[in-house]
Amino acid sequence: MTEIKRPSLGELDLPIGKRARLHSILYEHGVGNGTALILPIDHGLEHGPRDFFSNPESAGPEFQLRLAKEGGFSAIALHVGLAEKYMGKYAGEVPLILKLNGKTSIPPETRAFSPQTASVEDALRLGADAVGYTLFVGSPAQDQDILQFSRIREECRRYGVPLIVWSYPRGEAIDAKGGRDSIYAVDYAARVANDLGADMVKLNIPEYREEKSKQYPEPYDKLRLDTEDALRRVVASAGRTMTLVSGGEKMGDAELIEKTRASMEAGATGLIFGRNLWQRPFAEALKITWKMKKLLAEYPS
Amino acid sequence: MTEIKRPSLGELDLPIGKRARLHSILYEHGVGNGTALILPIDHGLEHGPRDFFSNPESAGPEFQLRLAKEGGFSAIALHVGLAEKYMGKYAGEVPLILKLNGKTSIPPETRAFSPQTASVEDALRLGADAVGYTLFVGSPAQDQDILQFSRIREECRRYGVPLIVWSYPRGEAIDAKGGRDSIYAVDYAARVANDLGADMVKLNIPEYREEKSKQYPEPYDKLRLDTEDALRRVVASAGRTMTLVSGGEKMGDAELIEKTRASMEAGATGLIFGRNLWQRPFAEALKITWKMKKLLAEYPS
Amino acid sequence: MTEIKRPSLGELDLPIGKRARLHSILYEHGVGNGTALILPIDHGLEHGPRDFFSNPESAGPEFQLRLAKEGGFSAIALHVGLAEKYMGKYAGEVPLILKLNGKTSIPPETRAFSPQTASVEDALRLGADAVGYTLFVGSPAQDQDILQFSRIREECRRYGVPLIVWSYPRGEAIDAKGGRDSIYAVDYAARVANDLGADMVKLNIPEYREEKSKQYPEPYDKLRLDTEDALRRVVASAGRTMTLVSGGEKMGDAELIEKTRASMEAGATGLIFGRNLWQRPFAEALKITWKMKKLLAEYPS
Amino acid sequence: MTEIKRPSLGELDLPIGKRARLHSILYEHGVGNGTALILPIDHGLEHGPRDFFSNPESAGPEFQLRLAKEGGFSAIALHVGLAEKYMGKYAGEVPLILKLNGKTSIPPETRAFSPQTASVEDALRLGADAVGYTLFVGSPAQDQDILQFSRIREECRRYGVPLIVWSYPRGEAIDAKGGRDSIYAVDYAARVANDLGADMVKLNIPEYREEKSKQYPEPYDKLRLDTEDALRRVVASAGRTMTLVSGGEKMGDAELIEKTRASMEAGATGLIFGRNLWQRPFAEALKITWKMKKLLAEYPS
Amino acid sequence: MTEIKRPSLGELDLPIGKRARLHSILYEHGVGNGTALILPIDHGLEHGPRDFFSNPESAGPEFQLRLAKEGGFSAIALHVGLAEKYMGKYAGEVPLILKLNGKTSIPPETRAFSPQTASVEDALRLGADAVGYTLFVGSPAQDQDILQFSRIREECRRYGVPLIVWSYPRGEAIDAKGGRDSIYAVDYAARVANDLGADMVKLNIPEYREEKSKQYPEPYDKLRLDTEDALRRVVASAGRTMTLVSGGEKMGDAELIEKTRASMEAGATGLIFGRNLWQRPFAEALKITWKMKKLLAEYPS
Repeated sequence: MTEIKRPSLGELDLPIGKRARLHSILYEHGVGNGTALILPIDHGLEHGPRDFFSNPESAGPEFQLRLAKEGGFSAIALHVGLAEKYMGKYAGEVPLILKLNGKTSIPPETRAFSPQTASVEDALRLGADAVGYTLFVGSPAQDQDILQFSRIREECRRYGVPLIVWSYPRGEAIDAKGGRDSIYAVDYAARVANDLGADMVKLNIPEYREEKSKQYPEPYDKLRLDTEDALRRVVASAGRTMTLVSGGEKMGDAELIEKTRASMEAGATGLIFGRNLWQRPFAEALKITWKMKKLLAEYPS
Repeated sequence: MTEIKRPSLGELDLPIGKRARLHSILYEHGVGNGTALILPIDHGLEHGPRDFFSNPESAGPEFQLRLAKEGGFSAIALHVGLAEKYMGKYAGEVPLILKLNGKTSIPPETRAFSPQTASVEDALRLGADAVGYTLFVGSPAQDQDILQFSRIREECRRYGVPLIVWSYPRGEAIDAKGGRDSIYAVDYAARVANDLGADMVKLNIPEYREEKSKQYPEPYDKLRLDTEDALRRVVASAGRTMTLVSGGEKMGDAELIEKTRASMEAGATGLIFGRNLWQRPFAEALKITWKMKKLLAEYPS
Repeated sequence: MTEIKRPSLGELDLPIGKRARLHSILYEHGVGNGTALILPIDHGLEHGPRDFFSNPESAGPEFQLRLAKEGGFSAIALHVGLAEKYMGKYAGEVPLILKLNGKTSIPPETRAFSPQTASVEDALRLGADAVGYTLFVGSPAQDQDILQFSRIREECRRYGVPLIVWSYPRGEAIDAKGGRDSIYAVDYAARVANDLGADMVKLNIPEYREEKSKQYPEPYDKLRLDTEDALRRVVASAGRTMTLVSGGEKMGDAELIEKTRASMEAGATGLIFGRNLWQRPFAEALKITWKMKKLLAEYPS
Repeated sequence: MTEIKRPSLGELDLPIGKRARLHSILYEHGVGNGTALILPIDHGLEHGPRDFFSNPESAGPEFQLRLAKEGGFSAIALHVGLAEKYMGKYAGEVPLILKLNGKTSIPPETRAFSPQTASVEDALRLGADAVGYTLFVGSPAQDQDILQFSRIREECRRYGVPLIVWSYPRGEAIDAKGGRDSIYAVDYAARVANDLGADMVKLNIPEYREEKSKQYPEPYDKLRLDTEDALRRVVASAGRTMTLVSGGEKMGDAELIEKTRASMEAGATGLIFGRNLWQRPFAEALKITWKMKKLLAEYPS
Repeated sequence: MTEIKRPSLGELDLPIGKRARLHSILYEHGVGNGTALILPIDHGLEHGPRDFFSNPESAGPEFQLRLAKEGGFSAIALHVGLAEKYMGKYAGEVPLILKLNGKTSIPPETRAFSPQTASVEDALRLGADAVGYTLFVGSPAQDQDILQFSRIREECRRYGVPLIVWSYPRGEAIDAKGGRDSIYAVDYAARVANDLGADMVKLNIPEYREEKSKQYPEPYDKLRLDTEDALRRVVASAGRTMTLVSGGEKMGDAELIEKTRASMEAGATGLIFGRNLWQRPFAEALKITWKMKKLLAEYPS
């Protein structure tokens, strides 16, 4: 399965604005070889301050901005409030991915939907190099979600702003079919992003769970893949949509490096790791960043 | 019942833009005699990647685009993401039908509704020769659906873009009245498309099911038609709306050819077959395509 | 009770556009004496093709259009799809009433609401002489309905387009109060049309039902009127809104003529009869049309 | 408690358009001393024709318009349909208050909400001197209601149109707290109108009901006021919003005059009495009108 | 924990209009040293007139306006009706914070949401120095709330109007997690305001409740802080959003002064105290105001 090749910016049929802005992320920042290492800090809104307890310094986005700058990340992803209040002195140095929707995790996610928190106009005003949108694939609120997404997609096209989709399987039906991290769910989420017009898609690593595998809709119930092959499949389903693999909850160094390697081998364009990096002391976070970047350097495109 | 005649482009009272674009589909591509053979590839969004397992090559729309070009299809139908990312090198060679709405099949279809995924402006920008809209006839969400449809219908009129309706009976009430493929349901769906202003309508082949026939609302409960007569009826109910007969799940070659023949005999303008074609190896898909086109050549209009 | 007088165009304080268009319906077509005989063919959307089984020829609106022309009707009422596809050769000869909303009868009517299917702009573009709107009086969805209606009402005023309301009592509360055809329900529906700004209102003939009369809200529970007096009452409640009496399901010739007479005696401006006319063979339909027109000729205004 | 003083037009900080139009109502019509006597005829929509049974002549708004003119009322309040159809010959003689929202009383009022039936633009076009809006204070639909109200409030400000709020407590929660006429409910409704930006507020007379007083939220449960003191309290809560006291169902002459007196003593700007006036024969209605006006003449402001 | 420092206007990266207007509140009124003492009078809409019973004079906003002027408050916060009707003679003397949304407390708060009552345009027209918005963090209606908030946030940015968020935890899920005043809830609310783009945030003082602490989501269940430390935490979570600490129900003088001190020590920018001030006789209210201001004078920024 070595035939998998990550989509390269030059081959994609992108309008000038999208190419210019993605060039900033892929070739002018980060490793600079067409890969991406992105630092998200939307956790304050999404999870509340609890994610910052293990590393209190990380509560202010100053920590993440400094890490993004000193670690030479491809971009930082955050909401409009943080962008307006903290990006000033990093403007131009750290590319901005403005998250355009979000929600708290307080009420239950039965009808998961992230309302719009900022506009494409906000992104343009702030000089963002891309915008981020969380799409809850399979949610009973998919009507509202796809409509909101599609209006944003169209505006992004008009103004040449790259659109990165956090493509997250959610909802009762997803749970009944084996859960949000099943290969069925992630594979579907990857394809949806490609069909609906994302430029990049953030995906979680699919996990095979023996005990849930009978719930997987066929033919997925017969599919038992290791991490790398599972990633290869979802990257393929994302088609010409560049894939960013998500880190999720904190893991150990070896596992983190191994997931990075597997992702890149599978054809991902890069990684979007938050808690795994900024839940560490600054120096340690920098160190693991360098390790990841060294690995990314092996996968030019 | 030989009096049935398919609507011909010249007789329809269409505005110039609609005529010009339909001319491209009906006379400049495909068989070129006023019939249509259309290849849909909206399955990635609608069903997820599972439809591609039996023919892994078919996962990328490259397969379908190549098939549409080499097989000389009248048009290809897909969503905006695929159009933007893959149509570039086929522009002008394969007419585009941009699907303007869609949804995943993950949550249950109790309130079936496909939210808008792209606009008529997108279709114009991409040089599409028509747009596609899925209308769930009989869904409890028909309010929302008809409103969304009607806004698009009006825009299509304004810009001369042909509008093809995927007219799909859905919902609890349809199930209670004998199911989505009953002659009652498909016949109603055909008429709705005509009344609401579609230019073409995609219909499934009505199926008579003995065990459900008592649920059919009268006078349909007394109506027992063979496939061709059932098609003749629904084509008649579609009136001056050209009919495209849908393939549905994969069937054998003989059945496929027979359904093509029955459809054309019944007055359909053409076929819209997806899985039945692209779930085959490329060469085989091409071969069956030629057989279908040979048959279509016998039905000029 | 001979004091009842139908509203005449000259006495109504209408803007020029509305007067001009109503003049076409009331004085230039039909009997030409200020009465109206209108042929509706919105049944395909509202009921599905089942209404055409008894007279298969009636399935295409060609039948109705030809009947409207040869029978010299005041106008024909249909949806945008039929108007665009079939009116071409009748343009100017048969005045058009464009129905602006509608729905299928497939899902239950618990929250009866007809979404907009076309716009006032469509009506202007098609040279319509009036538009029709179905208002479900008493439906739990009255909020949505009145809002939608009121926006259309305002546009009609702006462009001088007469607005005819199909004022239909519907919903659980109506059922609990004696049903949609009770004098309570029809009387309320008539008044609502007058207050909300209709120019004409289509009403069903109120029916007294002994077994339900206890459910009628007081003082209607004490009101036992024959057909003509009941019509006289609802025509009075419609005030300066011209009344069209609806035919409903097919009845015999004598009954039809008697209802026409009772309606005109009661002060109605005219009749809107569909199935009662086009569910007959063409020649027979023409014949009964002439009988009705002869009767209407006795009621100039 | 003689310190209560009704707000006078001169002291209020109103924009020119609002002052000019209120001047017409308060000083150029009615008693002409700054008080108001308003005749509402929105009952046809709100209650249906049943309110007209006791005085059949009152069914047409001609009755009310004539009464308003001959009785010299400050203004008449009705919906757009009646205004357009009947006001023509009274234009300029009877000031118009255009009701901008309304509903039928057919479905239950669990989520009481009156959708918009006309616009501020309609009011301007019709030369109205004010608009009326029914706000259901405490309804579970208050979100929708306050939003709709606030858009209208802003437009009224822009065009200088006085805004009169029918401030009606409604809904399950109101019922559980002692009902819509409790001092708690009416007092709250008065204050809401003041805070949200009404120019005038129509209030019902609060009623103390022993059997419900335990349900009144504290400290209202300890408040036992006679009619005049209760009115004084709610007039005070309305602050700089002029108060119109509502008549409600028909009462005897002595009671009517006493309520008028109590209202004016309590600081109300005037009365808005409908059924109590037009459910009488014309001459009798005129007579009681003169009595009320004579009383109002004692309360200049 | 002395490292906490309140955000100062000079350091914040604010657009000119926001700086100019905040300067009026922080340096030209109140103590004038960068702190804020704000008097809210939105209780009439939010709670009804019941809050004025203990001090009847306080029912009119004259009381509060006079207190704001004579006490030298930084600003007064109220709804559009009160602003338009009462601010005239205080214009320029008392800075206005226009509350842009609100609701009554009559129906239950299960889906807590405050609909918009005025616009940013209203605020500009009235010369307001800021606008206030109530966001119900954690409500099941958060979708609607965040969307409404975000549109206002964007307009505020466009016109340079400071945006103060009343960040209130609400809803069943909040109750199940330990209640609206838990450190978990208030901490989350603080962070949400920062991420979503508030300029200032109004927070309640977190309360530790032994009996509910097991419901607090971890790691908050292990966090037992005294008032000042709890405030320090939430002020930190608000980041570069200036914090206003809320007074809530009336307390004694000593407690009030102690809470003021604790708030300022914790890094708050100021206080927003309503009932605690205006539920006292005027002279007494003035006296306690001076005490608070004397304390605020010790915390320049």
